[in-house]
Amino acid sequence: MRLHTAPDQRVVGEVATAIAAAGGMVTAIDVADSSHDRLVVDVTCSAADASHAGELQAAVAAIEGVEVHKVSDRTFLIHLGGKIEIASKVPLRTRDDLSLAYTPGVGRVSLALAEHPEDVSRLTIKGNSVAVVTDGSAVLGLGNLGPGAALPVMEGKAALFKRFGGIDAWPICLDSQDTDEIVRTVELIAPGFGGINLEDIAAPRCFEVEARLRERLDIPVFHDDQHGTAIVVLAALTNALRVVGKEISGISVTVAGGGAAGTAIVKLLLAAGVRDVVVCDREGALCAGDENLSPAHRALAEITNPGRVRGPLQSVLAGRDVFIGVSGPGVLQPEWIEDMAADPVVFALANPDPEVDPVEAAKHAAVVASGRSDYPNQINNVLAFPGVFRGLLDARATDVTTEMMLRAANAIAHVVSDEELNASFIIPTVFHPDVHHAVAAAIRGAEH
Amino acid sequence: MRLHTAPDQRVVGEVATAIAAAGGMVTAIDVADSSHDRLVVDVTCSAADASHAGELQAAVAAIEGVEVHKVSDRTFLIHLGGKIEIASKVPLRTRDDLSLAYTPGVGRVSLALAEHPEDVSRLTIKGNSVAVVTDGSAVLGLGNLGPGAALPVMEGKAALFKRFGGIDAWPICLDSQDTDEIVRTVELIAPGFGGINLEDIAAPRCFEVEARLRERLDIPVFHDDQHGTAIVVLAALTNALRVVGKEISGISVTVAGGGAAGTAIVKLLLAAGVRDVVVCDREGALCAGDENLSPAHRALAEITNPGRVRGPLQSVLAGRDVFIGVSGPGVLQPEWIEDMAADPVVFALANPDPEVDPVEAAKHAAVVASGRSDYPNQINNVLAFPGVFRGLLDARATDVTTEMMLRAANAIAHVVSDEELNASFIIPTVFHPDVHHAVAAAIRGAEH
Repeated sequence: MRLHTAPDQRVVGEVATAIAAAGGMVTAIDVADSSHDRLVVDVTCSAADASHAGELQAAVAAIEGVEVHKVSDRTFLIHLGGKIEIASKVPLRTRDDLSLAYTPGVGRVSLALAEHPEDVSRLTIKGNSVAVVTDGSAVLGLGNLGPGAALPVMEGKAALFKRFGGIDAWPICLDSQDTDEIVRTVELIAPGFGGINLEDIAAPRCFEVEARLRERLDIPVFHDDQHGTAIVVLAALTNALRVVGKEISGISVTVAGGGAAGTAIVKLLLAAGVRDVVVCDREGALCAGDENLSPAHRALAEITNPGRVRGPLQSVLAGRDVFIGVSGPGVLQPEWIEDMAADPVVFALANPDPEVDPVEAAKHAAVVASGRSDYPNQINNVLAFPGVFRGLLDARATDVTTEMMLRAANAIAHVVSDEELNASFIIPTVFHPDVHHAVAAAIRGAEH
Repeated sequence: MRLHTAPDQRVVGEVATAIAAAGGMVTAIDVADSSHDRLVVDVTCSAADASHAGELQAAVAAIEGVEVHKVSDRTFLIHLGGKIEIASKVPLRTRDDLSLAYTPGVGRVSLALAEHPEDVSRLTIKGNSVAVVTDGSAVLGLGNLGPGAALPVMEGKAALFKRFGGIDAWPICLDSQDTDEIVRTVELIAPGFGGINLEDIAAPRCFEVEARLRERLDIPVFHDDQHGTAIVVLAALTNALRVVGKEISGISVTVAGGGAAGTAIVKLLLAAGVRDVVVCDREGALCAGDENLSPAHRALAEITNPGRVRGPLQSVLAGRDVFIGVSGPGVLQPEWIEDMAADPVVFALANPDPEVDPVEAAKHAAVVASGRSDYPNQINNVLAFPGVFRGLLDARATDVTTEMMLRAANAIAHVVSDEELNASFIIPTVFHPDVHHAVAAAIRGAEH
């Protein structure tokens, strides 16, 4: 907190006292500027969370002679100036260096590439670069915040691409939410990239954007919110079934939420051999023949719900093996889990607030996973996308196939050994030394 | 060179002998692979230039039992995998790090930016990032090579942006040469960038692209081939006039070439106080009222050639003070310089082969400059663009003005002190410790 205070030692003392009384820990008090009628004081202190930080601020602001000028916290501080940067891979110390990396040397490389376009991936960043493209319409679980507000998320993603996949990803935040414009823009910028990672684009627009780009581009296009999530869910489900001793072909699954992630999960589960999936939205089970459904939900209903089940989530859920929530907070009451089949599996993936409190769910379910980092079994896309693109780039793949995604899910699942596997450890951590290599190898089609 | 040879030590010996006989220096001979019927041998050697390298290759290929499989040189080798990469500015070692840089922490930053869009530049890479945008239609002096072949140039530019300006630039190579599409695409990707550097876009398309983007965007748009060149030319001219003791308001200038660079140079010279400029293209002097001129040349003729001079370059040049060539090789015969005014100034900037051999020109002219790095007085855009964008980003400028460009040119010129100034040193090296800071300060409008 930057404070403007009366030029009085005692006032500064009161600040420290007030923070301590409110449960905060003062790290440092620095006087940044001083004049005869006021002090500018920077107070650094620890709080338990954002709401506690608000309490500390209020406690300080209540002191007479103190004005809270500005509040920063470490999350905002690490974002100052952005989270990624460019580095040169070549030395630029001498005139000779310049003449190799830039004119006149680079001219020979350009001429060679004009003659042999197939070498572009080898002699430029295209071979290792991914565009992280968003229209800002579905930023995290926060909604349509627009391209500028989406940028910190895309930067974070780019940083993770480098950290876990060795990939050079650059954020492209589009100032349009028009499907045609998004498709055309990505198509036009594609020559410089080896892959396109679509991110935080709302359903159903994301489906059409992805399908059209896949058709038009000769580089892989992957909507992480869909397929990254689906891969990690399938990996986690594979291991949950290892824990409860069920075969994937025999289980019945209920998916809450028919958006981007839900749709991709359903398709990957079906490809993996699941025969009985029912999708529920707010109105209940999606059922073929229901004329009230949107086109996207109608398509989803066509490939799911073989028993033509109707009704609300609670009744659909009864007797079924698996619940996968990609919807919103509180959709699942913990006691409904009691009516599921024996050894129920519950994945509550809504973020930041899951469909059911994981601790409550664990009282009734055999295996529980969530999207949260503060419970066991976090379903985290970071397990998939760096290795997926690493494998795609290594293989110079022009497309990402369902077969690749199935192999990637299997690779993630089997990073957890039989000895390690239990109901609280169905999925490896993103820091596991093997997971990203295993995914990349699976995508390439190599043995792993 | 990677060679396939007979599995015979003597053959390998002959390779070394042949290279030495042809004037090459062998650094290393490595046997990369061996089987009973052949060896794979990597030969590393030094050559004087590209044509000498070709002679060495021919000498080796002439040896019986040797097949030259592949030839690389250090220019191509440093391009392998591209010249730039992404780096994370934040630590990503622990779960705690992830939760600050990515979810859930980043969500708070996105929400804050949705509410306060004016903070995007401060909390993201936007504040320090530039898109280097090309359509590949005028790559260096090499012509319309397309977006893929342009990528090494754009990467080199990005590396120079970082090296000399501390700026994070990313190449955007567009798969379209349609003005409307270029403009719209740049407009749509603009939210993630703090500036747009247009590069290697052919005239006259570049004029309209730049003008329309300047009108539509709230970040600065700068076509380096035009304005970067113009700034450095004006800087060099300023100092050439210091050398020959002439005032800028009194000189007469002849510009050969009415393309992107020529047009920008003319406009900046006029803004700097030059009163008499005549532009010549292949048909001779551009003169107002000539109905055969293209719209772009007609516009140029309107603001130049106050004396309505007509005729070919040679006759136009007679009695004039300054020649600036941004056209093609051999346009200027050295002896024509004799007919210019006393103490003629000759800038022959066509690349890679100038309008006149600088050594020949120096026999007749008082001051000679070129675009080449192997003669004194290299007119090099790298002197301008890093500092220009550094200043624009620092100032959060929304536009780049003629006034800024005049100040930047003056700043570059005055990095050369009166003591240092002479006919062979009118322009500082790009490695001069002050030049980029001086340009940035001039752009910001600060004293330097």
